[in-house]
Amino acid sequence: MPDQPIFERLCLIGVGLIGGSIARVARARGDIARTVVAHTRRPETLARVRELGFADVVEEDPAKAVAGADAVILCVPVGAYAGVMATIAPHLKPGAVLTDAGSTKGSVIRDLTPLLPKGVHLVPAHPMAGTEHSGPDAGFAELFHGRYVILTPEPGTDPAAVEKVAEMWRRAGSMVESMDAATHDKVVAIVSHLPHLIAFTICGTADDLAEETREAVLKFAASGFRDFTRIAASDVDMWRDIFLNNREALLEMLARFSEDAHALGRAVRWGEAGFIEDRIRRGRSIRRGLIERKQA
Amino acid sequence: MPDQPIFERLCLIGVGLIGGSIARVARARGDIARTVVAHTRRPETLARVRELGFADVVEEDPAKAVAGADAVILCVPVGAYAGVMATIAPHLKPGAVLTDAGSTKGSVIRDLTPLLPKGVHLVPAHPMAGTEHSGPDAGFAELFHGRYVILTPEPGTDPAAVEKVAEMWRRAGSMVESMDAATHDKVVAIVSHLPHLIAFTICGTADDLAEETREAVLKFAASGFRDFTRIAASDVDMWRDIFLNNREALLEMLARFSEDAHALGRAVRWGEAGFIEDRIRRGRSIRRGLIERKQA
Repeated sequence: MPDQPIFERLCLIGVGLIGGSIARVARARGDIARTVVAHTRRPETLARVRELGFADVVEEDPAKAVAGADAVILCVPVGAYAGVMATIAPHLKPGAVLTDAGSTKGSVIRDLTPLLPKGVHLVPAHPMAGTEHSGPDAGFAELFHGRYVILTPEPGTDPAAVEKVAEMWRRAGSMVESMDAATHDKVVAIVSHLPHLIAFTICGTADDLAEETREAVLKFAASGFRDFTRIAASDVDMWRDIFLNNREALLEMLARFSEDAHALGRAVRWGEAGFIEDRIRRGRSIRRGLIERKQA
Repeated sequence: MPDQPIFERLCLIGVGLIGGSIARVARARGDIARTVVAHTRRPETLARVRELGFADVVEEDPAKAVAGADAVILCVPVGAYAGVMATIAPHLKPGAVLTDAGSTKGSVIRDLTPLLPKGVHLVPAHPMAGTEHSGPDAGFAELFHGRYVILTPEPGTDPAAVEKVAEMWRRAGSMVESMDAATHDKVVAIVSHLPHLIAFTICGTADDLAEETREAVLKFAASGFRDFTRIAASDVDMWRDIFLNNREALLEMLARFSEDAHALGRAVRWGEAGFIEDRIRRGRSIRRGLIERKQA
């Protein structure tokens, strides 16, 4: 006999990798929501979600999808939040919890708060989970297992609403942490967004090389470059929106990284062995820190 | 009944990950060398190599180690080549093949050619294989299996000597390719050396963040950063020497990458969605290229 479901009616706006995985874990467990409603904008995706059958209700009208739901999770690229919110806000049920799964949090508060109806509780969330695949077929119930989910509720948010979202993620197998949105955005800028910007960039740099070298690059891609291209295989819309919606933190981290890369380049040019060794050692020490935390 | 060994007496100068793996595959197969001689500079490593027992002869004096060998492979960091060569050159056997396993090739030709005795054949080689571990314990016979080895013999090198080295690597399970040293150095600068420089750098950038953010970075390191730190766990001496000995190609690739990263940063600042999407798509297309070549 499972626990009582946290939510009576859970509505997912967007059912790609993340939304599709939430729906699957909710179905698999039975103690997250009694009814799962799925909305997605594209007719093809809607049809595919019906075929896959992981939602109880598949609804093409976003206003109808959120009506009566006691929890709504936005699982679309963060750039679409303001538009979606304008459509759904008038139909949100008083007392409902509005949460999301976006990789930027300051922008979410910026885009959702102005339209938030009185009595609806906003609890921004970021499940730090994903794969290089996207779309409703890519989701699976175990995606969030053992991964962190960061909540960034604003001060004064209803603690009961925050706890519901936290409990949902714990039941999905995640470890839940809270912090303010600005800290979140800085942390993800360096651990995730900048590495992606770098990976996309280096692939382009390689692509611009003279034909002969470029062919050899593809042929001899050693492990270093392979790891970069794994990152670079990610979804276009999602990453464009992340970059544009975590602009300040990302540009700050890019500037810091760039200064550091040029300092190392300068040391290479001038043969400063000690400086280079120090930089390599620092990489190893961070690596050790990750291993101690069992993240590597 | 195995084929005749390619070499009567094969001498490894340096028996870390690469040298230790060559010794192991030679022993495992029996058709690479009749006798494997191992030399290493440090007494502790010498003792450990004796314990591990993967070489027929362990010799502390490099001059004695190379004496009588019909093949000598340098498996030390590329920065040590000139010093090693000064010691061993007078003792190399006429007709012997001198090869190596370094990740830079222009520097190898620069450092070894001036001291090369008449009648000794230099065949620079780069096995594109490795792990994040180092030392004689890290080696294993299968390390080179299915990996590329690039040979960069100068025009006019004895074809029989080149073929012996190529055949050795084929018997170790590798795919052998040839190109000129300058092309090699450019290709590895972008597929391997620049990714390592970037990985070392971003670890340092993270390490410099304010204490609170730094702790969170270690805690929440997403897959992007994890892939970077895997690269960054590599051997200090080896990578210092690679950077210093592929200086020009590496600085050229860093400059190109840096221009491209700043162009993408600028697009983020000014909200140029189309430019950002184009860069992400190029990353995906390179990724597809790798998958088609079964490298990913």
